[in-house]
Amino acid sequence: MWELRSASFWRAICAEFFASLFYVFFGLGASLRWAPGPLHVLQVALAFGLALATLVQAVGHISGAHVNPAVTFAFLVGSQMSLLRAICYMVAQLLGAVAGAAVLYSVTPPAVRGNLALNTLHPGVSVGQATIVEIFLTLQFVLCIFATYDERRNGRLGSVALAVGFSLTLGHLFGMYYTGAGMNPARSFAPAILTRNFTNHWVYWVGPVIGAGLGSLLYDFLLFPRLKSVSERLSILKGSRPSESNGQPEVTGEPVELKTQAL
Amino acid sequence: MWELRSASFWRAICAEFFASLFYVFFGLGASLRWAPGPLHVLQVALAFGLALATLVQAVGHISGAHVNPAVTFAFLVGSQMSLLRAICYMVAQLLGAVAGAAVLYSVTPPAVRGNLALNTLHPGVSVGQATIVEIFLTLQFVLCIFATYDERRNGRLGSVALAVGFSLTLGHLFGMYYTGAGMNPARSFAPAILTRNFTNHWVYWVGPVIGAGLGSLLYDFLLFPRLKSVSERLSILKGSRPSESNGQPEVTGEPVELKTQAL
Amino acid sequence: MWELRSASFWRAICAEFFASLFYVFFGLGASLRWAPGPLHVLQVALAFGLALATLVQAVGHISGAHVNPAVTFAFLVGSQMSLLRAICYMVAQLLGAVAGAAVLYSVTPPAVRGNLALNTLHPGVSVGQATIVEIFLTLQFVLCIFATYDERRNGRLGSVALAVGFSLTLGHLFGMYYTGAGMNPARSFAPAILTRNFTNHWVYWVGPVIGAGLGSLLYDFLLFPRLKSVSERLSILKGSRPSESNGQPEVTGEPVELKTQAL
Amino acid sequence: MWELRSASFWRAICAEFFASLFYVFFGLGASLRWAPGPLHVLQVALAFGLALATLVQAVGHISGAHVNPAVTFAFLVGSQMSLLRAICYMVAQLLGAVAGAAVLYSVTPPAVRGNLALNTLHPGVSVGQATIVEIFLTLQFVLCIFATYDERRNGRLGSVALAVGFSLTLGHLFGMYYTGAGMNPARSFAPAILTRNFTNHWVYWVGPVIGAGLGSLLYDFLLFPRLKSVSERLSILKGSRPSESNGQPEVTGEPVELKTQAL
Repeated sequence: MWELRSASFWRAICAEFFASLFYVFFGLGASLRWAPGPLHVLQVALAFGLALATLVQAVGHISGAHVNPAVTFAFLVGSQMSLLRAICYMVAQLLGAVAGAAVLYSVTPPAVRGNLALNTLHPGVSVGQATIVEIFLTLQFVLCIFATYDERRNGRLGSVALAVGFSLTLGHLFGMYYTGAGMNPARSFAPAILTRNFTNHWVYWVGPVIGAGLGSLLYDFLLFPRLKSVSERLSILKGSRPSESNGQPEVTGEPVELKTQAL
Repeated sequence: MWELRSASFWRAICAEFFASLFYVFFGLGASLRWAPGPLHVLQVALAFGLALATLVQAVGHISGAHVNPAVTFAFLVGSQMSLLRAICYMVAQLLGAVAGAAVLYSVTPPAVRGNLALNTLHPGVSVGQATIVEIFLTLQFVLCIFATYDERRNGRLGSVALAVGFSLTLGHLFGMYYTGAGMNPARSFAPAILTRNFTNHWVYWVGPVIGAGLGSLLYDFLLFPRLKSVSERLSILKGSRPSESNGQPEVTGEPVELKTQAL
Repeated sequence: MWELRSASFWRAICAEFFASLFYVFFGLGASLRWAPGPLHVLQVALAFGLALATLVQAVGHISGAHVNPAVTFAFLVGSQMSLLRAICYMVAQLLGAVAGAAVLYSVTPPAVRGNLALNTLHPGVSVGQATIVEIFLTLQFVLCIFATYDERRNGRLGSVALAVGFSLTLGHLFGMYYTGAGMNPARSFAPAILTRNFTNHWVYWVGPVIGAGLGSLLYDFLLFPRLKSVSERLSILKGSRPSESNGQPEVTGEPVELKTQAL
Repeated sequence: MWELRSASFWRAICAEFFASLFYVFFGLGASLRWAPGPLHVLQVALAFGLALATLVQAVGHISGAHVNPAVTFAFLVGSQMSLLRAICYMVAQLLGAVAGAAVLYSVTPPAVRGNLALNTLHPGVSVGQATIVEIFLTLQFVLCIFATYDERRNGRLGSVALAVGFSLTLGHLFGMYYTGAGMNPARSFAPAILTRNFTNHWVYWVGPVIGAGLGSLLYDFLLFPRLKSVSERLSILKGSRPSESNGQPEVTGEPVELKTQAL
């Protein structure tokens, strides 16, 4: 329980709350229908991707900017954070997402609100097919996050934020036709609770969670294994041993005032 | 007042003037309607984002490429520049923006000019809702700028210019439907003065300024605090002590001819 | 045959299999027609590009993320991998691509499947013209990959993944009108075998393979030559001497647990 | 004339030839009209931008990937290359551009060729307005290139290729409505010679050349001055003293086989 006494822990929880609020506010808001006609899939997919990219840029060094219970679950499976931290993250994400949807509801004209961009299945897609699609969408996403956040890499990785954001955009370019592209239980939960419509809602929890777990196992055990013992993994999970990365792309420790060297 | 005797100070003012001119010229110009039909929101949002990205790339190391009185205000609140510098920046930004809109007016066929992409409220959106939207748009934008320009970070941040530009694009993908996406009082002021239409114009000052102030406080005091004392902050504000960053992503000091090392 | 006893060799093969599966699943899936009307070329081109970018980010350090027999052929011509490794890569890529198309087939409503985004020639384009187009598409793509993966460079290269992905997007923005933009025999092969339609299928092998070979020769011999002797090249080809890069942008060796330095 | 005896000089000329060929081939090709309806401005603008980004990535370290006589002129004005090298670059660019347009012509169905994406003025735009627009388009482009290629910078610049490519995209998002967005005399010259239509062709030389010259002066003398004496500048111009950068973002010298360090 030492984590609860750390200021950086509570800053991370705040960061997850605000980032989830912004993610849902901007993502759902950019998906609303202001005029008749087909949904502009590319525009919505880029809005979600750039929202995540902006948030990873803004708070990635504070909390990792998971903004997504499935992603937090993946880091838990990969022994990169404690169970306590993971649960607090998920609570903050769900509360932030609902707050974001509520703010969106309050600033949007009633005629435009619709179902607040609720995730729904395409009529021709069965729940089984939808679950498989959500698994694949989240699987590629978590693979990309794990590889991008991996502190063992030293290559020309470019921007963490854009890599992760564009992987989310990719999922939306494919998945919006099938399931509306959940990939994030908090994003799916927020409009469901505001519109009180939970039809097939479980798909948007089961699919992303399975996909995230598979992605974590695939990367951390098969493709680029980490040599952690079971006891090490357990002690990280229990929080008795701090994880090195805490599911963050950048280890900054306590924010201190660094001196920059002028030329 | 020592700043007024520094060549780099005046270069920064010039950079803000020219960058604001280009920002408004390209942003408004890409928003004009050459043919009937709905506005291509994604295209306009990318034009604004790439305009800012290009200008941050071009003059970010000279002035920080704020191009925006609200962003300059945020850096003032964050004690990253002096009051004198902030006021000079804002004057240069407003003059540059009006100059850019004037050049645009002169090269555009009268039938296409319309209201020069003036920011207007959607008929279904109240001024209160519009102000809240502008606050949220600018809040995420300033959070992203502060985190990206933060000299304490050393991770895989990628391009400063793209991060900031895509955050602006995100704001436009959401906000164009509600308020036309101001996010920048200078951008909103320039077409208002050329078309002499100041209906609800205050929304585009109050919203961004509140959002920028909140973003600065949220990042600098809550999420990733800086340990500056009040007296330090006051002396930076008065200009008696130079800020380390001056609201720039890159501290270059005086431009000197560096020798590159051939392999 | 020492490579066959190396764990990292088999991890690379797995990575090529899964990456090809995802590439075909997301690329073809984002090209399906859910509604009447013209194909959204920009959306499809970005889906292919972001799919490749995401996969290069996710497994580029494991296998190079070729995902493409023509790219593997280019690295073979450039003496950057052994013949054995190249053949195993190609088999994994073809199997992965067919698996990806099969999963896509199973989750997609029958009315939407169509020809599974099979590559076909525009009616006005002859097979000769189509082959030339495929050569040019792949030539620029392989030039970009070779220059981006080149370990001799040390400049501001940004993200390997985005550079390669956007080069693929470029090829699609041009080529989709002419040939559907193959650029990758595995991508063309997968829908052909599932729909049993091999009309002009050879174009999508001959074009990319010639283009890839020309790109490799142009970069490695004319534009930015490597001083490898013929005997060196032969021993890399035979696998008796390990290649330094193995067609990867980042040499990571065995994945070990690196310690990160907190500030 | 020592440059003529250097292998890297001739490799640079080859690189400019091939890069200009590809630039015109992909840029014009992606602008052709395969179906009736308005031109997809965003798609064309991204095609040009990604074409340039891909070419800067591919040959930026060999020749600088100017691909554009106006850009080469800007580097000449900025004393970053010799007159001899600049003239050879321009000849290679014009020959490459014409070759690219000729290949495009030969692979395209006659019904689709149209005027090969010739740059033309919008009917409502005068030649004076068009020239001013071309000046502004090229001015922001050259400012961005100069700042991005500047070897004195050491910040978080990200990818040189994307910065320059997106600046070109920005120019197209604005300029395609006014002038078709030349910004490059070689790109404008190639379709003009193939369709033998030189109406207002001078605008596409005078505008970009003035814009490039102004951009060079603005950056190198006002915004971020270089302390070169007149005699230094003259000797670089005459080629008796080698420029450090030669208008390239990355100084690689002779390509040698570097050893990479495995972890």
